[in-house]
Amino acid sequence: MKNITYINNKFVKNSNAKISVEDRGFLFADSVYELISVFNKKIVDIDQHLNRLKSSLNKVKLKYNFNKKKIRKIINKLIKLNNVINGYIYIQITRGVAERKHEFPKQYKPTTIIFTKNLNVDKKIYKKGVKIITIPDLRWLRRDIKTTSLLPNVLSKQLAVEKNAFESWLIDNGNITEGSTSNAWIIKSSNTIITHPANTKILKGVTRDTIIKILKKNNFNVIEKPFNLIEAKNAKEAFITSSTLSVLPVVKIDNYNISNGKPGDITKKIMYLYNNYINKNKNLLTKELKIA
Amino acid sequence: MKNITYINNKFVKNSNAKISVEDRGFLFADSVYELISVFNKKIVDIDQHLNRLKSSLNKVKLKYNFNKKKIRKIINKLIKLNNVINGYIYIQITRGVAERKHEFPKQYKPTTIIFTKNLNVDKKIYKKGVKIITIPDLRWLRRDIKTTSLLPNVLSKQLAVEKNAFESWLIDNGNITEGSTSNAWIIKSSNTIITHPANTKILKGVTRDTIIKILKKNNFNVIEKPFNLIEAKNAKEAFITSSTLSVLPVVKIDNYNISNGKPGDITKKIMYLYNNYINKNKNLLTKELKIA
Repeated sequence: MKNITYINNKFVKNSNAKISVEDRGFLFADSVYELISVFNKKIVDIDQHLNRLKSSLNKVKLKYNFNKKKIRKIINKLIKLNNVINGYIYIQITRGVAERKHEFPKQYKPTTIIFTKNLNVDKKIYKKGVKIITIPDLRWLRRDIKTTSLLPNVLSKQLAVEKNAFESWLIDNGNITEGSTSNAWIIKSSNTIITHPANTKILKGVTRDTIIKILKKNNFNVIEKPFNLIEAKNAKEAFITSSTLSVLPVVKIDNYNISNGKPGDITKKIMYLYNNYINKNKNLLTKELKIA
Repeated sequence: MKNITYINNKFVKNSNAKISVEDRGFLFADSVYELISVFNKKIVDIDQHLNRLKSSLNKVKLKYNFNKKKIRKIINKLIKLNNVINGYIYIQITRGVAERKHEFPKQYKPTTIIFTKNLNVDKKIYKKGVKIITIPDLRWLRRDIKTTSLLPNVLSKQLAVEKNAFESWLIDNGNITEGSTSNAWIIKSSNTIITHPANTKILKGVTRDTIIKILKKNNFNVIEKPFNLIEAKNAKEAFITSSTLSVLPVVKIDNYNISNGKPGDITKKIMYLYNNYINKNKNLLTKELKIA
């Protein structure tokens, strides 16, 4: 597999994909990003990801000549060049290179990076389900912005790994907001499916939104409202969602088994529905290549 | 002036100082930094800065072969090469290059960047004093760690600039924690000097600590305790401190004049004492070069 990265209008070998140490993305994490999954050569929810990217740029006031069609063309070219079958596309836009000062430079030329990765997902974890731990949510208060100021997420995920868990669920004011790299869901004994509302306390996951739509279409009772640790531990089922993980069952929270400690039936049904959605999803790659 | 940057054991032209787009400093802001001032070729409080750097590395569990002597040698070499008279040294250490995953890589080679800048400080602002605005403190809850996850600070400083102010003071639970790039101080009518205690809510500024020592030595009454916006607006005097700014008088908070809207006498005295401290500070550069 070739490994080509797009960087500011150039396609270069990954080993040559470098940025200045004075890039604001490096000095200040003054940048936003998106990660878009590719399953069986199909790009999942690309429109929603690019819309969120545009929204993140606006929220951090990063002036960018946002051309969705151009980005899609680059993505399609990279997927072809790098022969991505299962994996992801990573896009990061920074406020460019400038002498180090916190305030925005008066003028700047944003840096755009797009690369792809092939990814082999461990199938076992979907059958067995995963363990999660809960820790305090120490992140900043604009978690709705998808920025690269990710150190708190890095440290939270690392804490999970050190406890032989897959993910950390973050607790803010008694409620579970989301995971360090995913959205958190529980299913009550009433079969009601609950996830935190999409306000500034969480990142509005693209997969989260798609799942909500799928659930509503299939007449599940889904409610966006905060839930606490006791509700989580007493839940009938639990799962997490993210672009790379899709729907992943949670079977243990802080060493406390969820029901019988096996993936629940409703969760399995949601996994099935989401996989159907991905497989029926238009093959945007083919479509775009015809346009290009 | 030459412009040389140190990057992973090499001294390169600044234009060649580049890092991989897969550096965790770029993808996750998984990195810590220090900025050390140079006044008249003298490096200010280098020991304290390097100690804090080591402490930041420990706090984010970044395994690093920390060699103070080696870093000092590099700094002295850069100052000489780049002919830094007034300016600063910038050091950033990241968790290195790795395939993008939030958790720490099992093994990693940290990235070390050191560069210098000459800086022309605007003398006028010290005579006139500056205006600050107050805004909510949205940052994460481990502000004691000097990381490059700085987007919240960037956006806070930018808000000040957009309001024709010099700095933003951040309000958390009714109290002013610190500025977006500096520590915040007020002087009460009783002449008591107040600044926020150095807990996880603020960054323990090196200049802040030095000022506290100088004040105590000179029999000022200085107390580390939180203060609120009303106390700030009713203060007799106010100022900010940082490594690049030293001591800078604040004369306006949210368009409200502090006393008569001119730098106060005690603040001027503190500026004088701090300048004395800097000028008497050992010339570490000369000392180190003899060792090297």
